Amino acid sequence: MIWRWLGFGKDSYQPEKDIGPYSNYRLAIRLELNQKPGVFAKLTNAIAKEGASIGAVDMISATKTKVVRDITLDTKNEEHGQRVLDRLEKLPDVKVLSASDRIFMLHLGGKLKMGSKFQISTRNTLSMAYTPGVGRVSQAIAKDPSLTYRFTSKSNSVAVITDGSAILGLGDLGPEAALPVMEGKVMLFQQFAGIDAWPICLNTRDPEQIIQTITNIAPGFGGINLEDISAPRCFEIERRLKATLDIPVMHDDQHGTAVVILSALLNALKVTNRELNQTKVVVNGLGAAGTACCQLLIAAGIGQLKGCDKKGLVLNEPMDVLRSTNDHLTNFIHYDQPTGTLQQALKGADVFIGLSSGNILRPKDLKPMAPEAIVFALANPDPEISPEDALGKCRIYASGRSDYPNQSNNLLAFPGLFRGALDVQAKEINQAMKLAAAHALANVIPAQSLNDEYIIPSVFDKNVVPAIAKAVAIAAKETGMARRNPKHEEGLE
Amino acid sequence: MIWRWLGFGKDSYQPEKDIGPYSNYRLAIRLELNQKPGVFAKLTNAIAKEGASIGAVDMISATKTKVVRDITLDTKNEEHGQRVLDRLEKLPDVKVLSASDRIFMLHLGGKLKMGSKFQISTRNTLSMAYTPGVGRVSQAIAKDPSLTYRFTSKSNSVAVITDGSAILGLGDLGPEAALPVMEGKVMLFQQFAGIDAWPICLNTRDPEQIIQTITNIAPGFGGINLEDISAPRCFEIERRLKATLDIPVMHDDQHGTAVVILSALLNALKVTNRELNQTKVVVNGLGAAGTACCQLLIAAGIGQLKGCDKKGLVLNEPMDVLRSTNDHLTNFIHYDQPTGTLQQALKGADVFIGLSSGNILRPKDLKPMAPEAIVFALANPDPEISPEDALGKCRIYASGRSDYPNQSNNLLAFPGLFRGALDVQAKEINQAMKLAAAHALANVIPAQSLNDEYIIPSVFDKNVVPAIAKAVAIAAKETGMARRNPKHEEGLE
Repeated sequence: MIWRWLGFGKDSYQPEKDIGPYSNYRLAIRLELNQKPGVFAKLTNAIAKEGASIGAVDMISATKTKVVRDITLDTKNEEHGQRVLDRLEKLPDVKVLSASDRIFMLHLGGKLKMGSKFQISTRNTLSMAYTPGVGRVSQAIAKDPSLTYRFTSKSNSVAVITDGSAILGLGDLGPEAALPVMEGKVMLFQQFAGIDAWPICLNTRDPEQIIQTITNIAPGFGGINLEDISAPRCFEIERRLKATLDIPVMHDDQHGTAVVILSALLNALKVTNRELNQTKVVVNGLGAAGTACCQLLIAAGIGQLKGCDKKGLVLNEPMDVLRSTNDHLTNFIHYDQPTGTLQQALKGADVFIGLSSGNILRPKDLKPMAPEAIVFALANPDPEISPEDALGKCRIYASGRSDYPNQSNNLLAFPGLFRGALDVQAKEINQAMKLAAAHALANVIPAQSLNDEYIIPSVFDKNVVPAIAKAVAIAAKETGMARRNPKHEEGLE
Repeated sequence: MIWRWLGFGKDSYQPEKDIGPYSNYRLAIRLELNQKPGVFAKLTNAIAKEGASIGAVDMISATKTKVVRDITLDTKNEEHGQRVLDRLEKLPDVKVLSASDRIFMLHLGGKLKMGSKFQISTRNTLSMAYTPGVGRVSQAIAKDPSLTYRFTSKSNSVAVITDGSAILGLGDLGPEAALPVMEGKVMLFQQFAGIDAWPICLNTRDPEQIIQTITNIAPGFGGINLEDISAPRCFEIERRLKATLDIPVMHDDQHGTAVVILSALLNALKVTNRELNQTKVVVNGLGAAGTACCQLLIAAGIGQLKGCDKKGLVLNEPMDVLRSTNDHLTNFIHYDQPTGTLQQALKGADVFIGLSSGNILRPKDLKPMAPEAIVFALANPDPEISPEDALGKCRIYASGRSDYPNQSNNLLAFPGLFRGALDVQAKEINQAMKLAAAHALANVIPAQSLNDEYIIPSVFDKNVVPAIAKAVAIAAKETGMARRNPKHEEGLE
């Protein structure tokens, strides 16, 4: 199979700094070489001079005059890869037939495959899994709809739904461009939590249409994960769906993020010997994630909370006001006039939580914070302040980056949240379940292992999902949102 | 795991005649027996006296006084299973803890499982399949949407969509009850054609809502299989979606059925030495399947066509009128007043195609038909006339039943139709592609093998799907509906 070069240009997404040869930028190149002595040596010399490393070399075909080879190369980044290719294309006796890199190769044909729990290889099985036998299952469900959970995929399925309006940090790229991201999310649901999900990319931006469409397709799903929907539409869409549907609806950009942040904060407070109800927090960036983070911090019992957006300090009400308006926080914080600057808000704060954009803080901005300050600079791909700049002025630093300690990643929360919700056939994911998830996630790290650089578990820590799922299931039952008992109460784990 | 007895009652679906012990009615029973001599023998005697066969017997647990056993039993049908259970429940020293049968057991937890094409077990793979690496794939697609087919699951995915309004022969049971049927269809797509499908059960019956919802979720799918949507709404829903979407949309109850019928007819005509353009056909039942069957027969070049519904002969126009109005046939046939009875229509007809209801024809009704008549009695579960009654009066008989020769089954058509359409990234499934499918399906049986009882291949014939897919792909290209060349032209098969 031949795929063509996808034009890495200046405007390409460049999420990582130049961190040296890295297999994200591994290229697979198919070359046609003239069949004469020295051509291959010239080729390998050219690659070496450009500083790229040769991996596998495969012979594809050969005639008396031509030989076709596949070569894999590790390059530093897209531009480096392009430079290497440019040089190869100028070589005499060498023709670049095609080039791709490993990310695109991994995505060829998509990342998902539907599977069946058993094979239909005989007429008898066919007549049970499909007509006429399946009709009896349908009739049983029509008589008692609660059996849907027992005899269909609803019991373990989540729709991952986006309108493509806020894809990763890239903005509005449309539903087709969102599909590879949603497929990735589906893979994570499956591999981290054993959940059967499916991506749904919506060709509309109208909140009414989105709400109606999701309402219409809901019967077959045990949960709805809203993803990458831009604020402020995401607030109304989620709120209205939660009100009408009897299955969990969660916008992960809001609540998954909030759960991970609260969890990291709980551990950071343990490390710095603070109490939550004495802690002063400034949240900067009041979009989807920032607003949900404020709401969860209020529900958790934070001592003081201020919120800033681009205009400055806009959320500055006393805690009793914030607590009483928590459910409706999104209704008013975006209309307030600023009462100060971010820098003013930071004075005396114990914690800075950034969910805004890169490099907006200078080291001196952190100076007025309380001693042993906690800085979560979570903007992607560049944090609000780099760890190099921050760590002289604060004690604990976390970011969204995998190349620094304390990486905050939504993958820590959503698989366990939905696993727990599905396990008890929950009717919703509520604040109590999110709080339980945050505490469970924090407690995955034993108290004696906690330190400045280890307040968040690894996403590959096998204890994360079961711990969150169990806590979420218990909280669902305690708040009356569970249709069945948690697994451990049934002796199923 | 314990599941409880699901109340087989008088009103249960009874698709099969009493044809003796059959594993569709295999029961799994968990019994608690008092631990004393002779109890097990009494149990097996009781089962034998009821005429049920014992399969596996497993010991689950035992104490000094009690023993719990799982026993599987083959019974004749639901009522028979219930009788056996009633008798066991009356036995002294025996307690029925739970009972289920194999169909329900097969459906526990649903029939589907989502899979991934590769595992995410390292941070590096995570950063390619999900953030940040996947962002480059998203950006490439945003720049060139045709890449959606290359790098996402759209290339191989079909949404199987229903509103639950016409489930099998059972009628309107709602979206939840439709789910096991749609899951079965998804399994067939996967196992017979390697297609990744997903069931979508809609919680609305409003055609406008259905059209809007499907339009909104379409971007991620390479095709839409409409299923079990009642007539006449199905006609408008399909027509409007075909007009607006640039992917294949096919209501299988209409066109899958029509393709199989035309295919069977082509072979029946070969066996009886008739030419299609000289053949006179009566279609009885002008619902979804009957109407599509009429349309495809007209497109194929049938000699004469009459159509009947419950009122009688309502489609009786000259062939030139039918040909010129074929695309809009559904607009008028349901409003015609009858010009005769079904029995009158059958006079001189070569072919009867029944898509109506069981046992509406008497043997004498077939007498006025042409010699060597062809009778397709396709109503489910009971055909319009039984083979015993028909075969004295006709030469070739086909039905939807698996216990008679010439079983017409949609499974013969839809996997290959969508396989071929996806292989060329088709923009629609049009009449030319359906005709090509019907001819390809007919030709799966070599001419020398055709006979009165073998005009339709087995659904398990491995040649069916590739033959149809190839023909459909070629027809798509010939009619300008293919986005890429058929596989065989690319040297890919």
